Amino acid sequence: MDVSRRGRTVQASPIRKFKPFADAAIASGVKVYFLNIGDPDIPTPKPILDAVRSFNDPILSYGPAQGFLDLREAIAGYFKDYGIALVADNVIITLGGSEAILLAFASVADPGDEIIIPEPFYTNYNGYASLADLNVVPLTLKVEDGFRLPPAEEFEAKITPRTRAIVLCSPNNPTGSVYSAEELGRVVRIAMKHDLFIIGDEVYKEFVYDGLKHKSLMEFEEARDRVIVVDSISKRFSCCGARIGAAITRNEKVYGAMLRFAQARLCPPTIEQRAALAAYKMGMGYFEPVRQEYERRRNVLFEGLTAIPGVVVRKPQGAFYMSVRLPIKDTERFVTWMLTDFRLDGQTVMVAPESGFYSTPGKGLDEIRVAYVLKEEDLRRALVVFRAGLEKYKATVEK
Amino acid sequence: MDVSRRGRTVQASPIRKFKPFADAAIASGVKVYFLNIGDPDIPTPKPILDAVRSFNDPILSYGPAQGFLDLREAIAGYFKDYGIALVADNVIITLGGSEAILLAFASVADPGDEIIIPEPFYTNYNGYASLADLNVVPLTLKVEDGFRLPPAEEFEAKITPRTRAIVLCSPNNPTGSVYSAEELGRVVRIAMKHDLFIIGDEVYKEFVYDGLKHKSLMEFEEARDRVIVVDSISKRFSCCGARIGAAITRNEKVYGAMLRFAQARLCPPTIEQRAALAAYKMGMGYFEPVRQEYERRRNVLFEGLTAIPGVVVRKPQGAFYMSVRLPIKDTERFVTWMLTDFRLDGQTVMVAPESGFYSTPGKGLDEIRVAYVLKEEDLRRALVVFRAGLEKYKATVEK
Repeated sequence: MDVSRRGRTVQASPIRKFKPFADAAIASGVKVYFLNIGDPDIPTPKPILDAVRSFNDPILSYGPAQGFLDLREAIAGYFKDYGIALVADNVIITLGGSEAILLAFASVADPGDEIIIPEPFYTNYNGYASLADLNVVPLTLKVEDGFRLPPAEEFEAKITPRTRAIVLCSPNNPTGSVYSAEELGRVVRIAMKHDLFIIGDEVYKEFVYDGLKHKSLMEFEEARDRVIVVDSISKRFSCCGARIGAAITRNEKVYGAMLRFAQARLCPPTIEQRAALAAYKMGMGYFEPVRQEYERRRNVLFEGLTAIPGVVVRKPQGAFYMSVRLPIKDTERFVTWMLTDFRLDGQTVMVAPESGFYSTPGKGLDEIRVAYVLKEEDLRRALVVFRAGLEKYKATVEK
Repeated sequence: MDVSRRGRTVQASPIRKFKPFADAAIASGVKVYFLNIGDPDIPTPKPILDAVRSFNDPILSYGPAQGFLDLREAIAGYFKDYGIALVADNVIITLGGSEAILLAFASVADPGDEIIIPEPFYTNYNGYASLADLNVVPLTLKVEDGFRLPPAEEFEAKITPRTRAIVLCSPNNPTGSVYSAEELGRVVRIAMKHDLFIIGDEVYKEFVYDGLKHKSLMEFEEARDRVIVVDSISKRFSCCGARIGAAITRNEKVYGAMLRFAQARLCPPTIEQRAALAAYKMGMGYFEPVRQEYERRRNVLFEGLTAIPGVVVRKPQGAFYMSVRLPIKDTERFVTWMLTDFRLDGQTVMVAPESGFYSTPGKGLDEIRVAYVLKEEDLRRALVVFRAGLEKYKATVEK
């Protein structure tokens, strides 16, 4: 008796599978700079923690399946500040942005259906595609092009009768690219022409640099029935462990399907919904210093990486990731070696190999994703250690 | 463009769909006794709330996908008190027992595969079967038989080449039956003979009456590789809004598949895992007074219901539900009418129509599920109101 086919084939998290090597390094007294995972070091805002600490109900009971009304109203209000008109009943509070991905996938597609995703992409789309038994059809982007979206013909070449949706993440994890109004409009036109849904993962939308402005798929009025947006408070408010996100759509049928699926799990966590409400009440003023902090870090990391011979990277415009090509053949081996063998003054660096962010076999073997979630000083030191490690790896392992 | 087939066909929660009528009644000043949903009125234990209120990390960050080690160890220790040997790596902390159901379903079965479930059953199995695109094959039990499990032949008549698992809930929601060692052993033998998994939903295992003892599927050593147990702190510690459960198995392949699916959603809520740890540290002494309280309520409800002419109910042995046949044709209509039309001294009662707990169309139309989650005094008053409502409904609506 074996597990199911999907259970056998679902991808192990490529971000988390090197964790045991990092744990061993730490246990042996090594200092590890973690640039492998998007777990920010910015303190969680006080109103969130205060809301948690002042929870005073006698019974920690169920809430509504779609989430508390006041929180859904606050999220609608937050989008209003971005010029997007929503009502509370366009919003379902989810168990992190993660659950919003699952609800969106299952509501628009059946087993064997296809979803087109530009790659490299956020690796957990793979896990949910396996769970919902969808086929991911990748559209390969290139670091040399700054991971820009390709012409419409390249999308259209991937469309079949089973295509149900295009998934776009902007600002992008793992590339950091921020899609322009023109790029998003191109995808909207394709979706309308071929009768597809668009699932927009916009959880990083405050993290946009160089004076750019985030454009949401919800701003395309002509596609209002086609768009489902995945949202989350995890990165926005530095509270990844809260597990509060949202699935947002103005398509009533899609909303109804997502809500019925959501009813099976009863409700999102009660306490963190209160905390999220407190977070949204801080207003938009909270974000600017945080944004500036990440922009400075991006600049530090970008300068440091471009100074290393053979490294290929384009300056990303958003999120807190960079996809980077290294002058080596096997970044999985390199990441492992950095954790098990390399130390500079008792320190090493952990990054994420990027092949797991591709759906096409053999892609991304020479690429890594770097998350700039450490403060500037640590980032500068991590760059020194990383560069020394890369050079030693080239000279001694992949020589 | 329409939603997916599964999105169109997934069941709306039969427990929650009458909520708007209840809200309207409350808004008009009516007192509603809620016997429709298993949201206990027992206060959440202080150690849980204290753990929440003393959360003092500067950053609310991600934990491991499988949950914190100390909590998984505490859960293994709790099972040890039941004579079941587990290690932390048999346990995945989930987003309520709900997510454990999904992980179990997806890990043992692929789209189009079948799972056999005695009906009436916990209605949310339907939602997850839709999400995972499995076919639920019901095995109809009867109130007159006290909802006991049928002979092996009746199970075997439902087995096909696509059958992957039998799902058993004991103590049962919605019937309150507690399966004996003999009944469980019967299912274990069937599973071994036909090479099936057994998914055991045992979230109510502290709620067992009349001096009976809960028997876990994990006690059947011969089936150690076939059993996945769904667990939850929601009812056990009166904290349904915490969303902490567990998927437990000693089958390493199943564990691996469930964990890889779980990695896609990153981690369970950080704060409530700390709270759950505090709960388990209270020790087994916590449960006995709570168990006694529910046993008293069961007795009050059972006596009250059996005194009503035409009502058919057998004394349940566990959980905090009863499945009851009423002397009317359409309990959905009755439940709605109670909320919209009937008041006794400004009061009414809400129960759950039971057809939604059956997978076979047309079954359960004259049945309700009653949850005894109110204190004795309220339960006695609710019985008076319920009986008056039922008699008036019979005399004026279904006359």
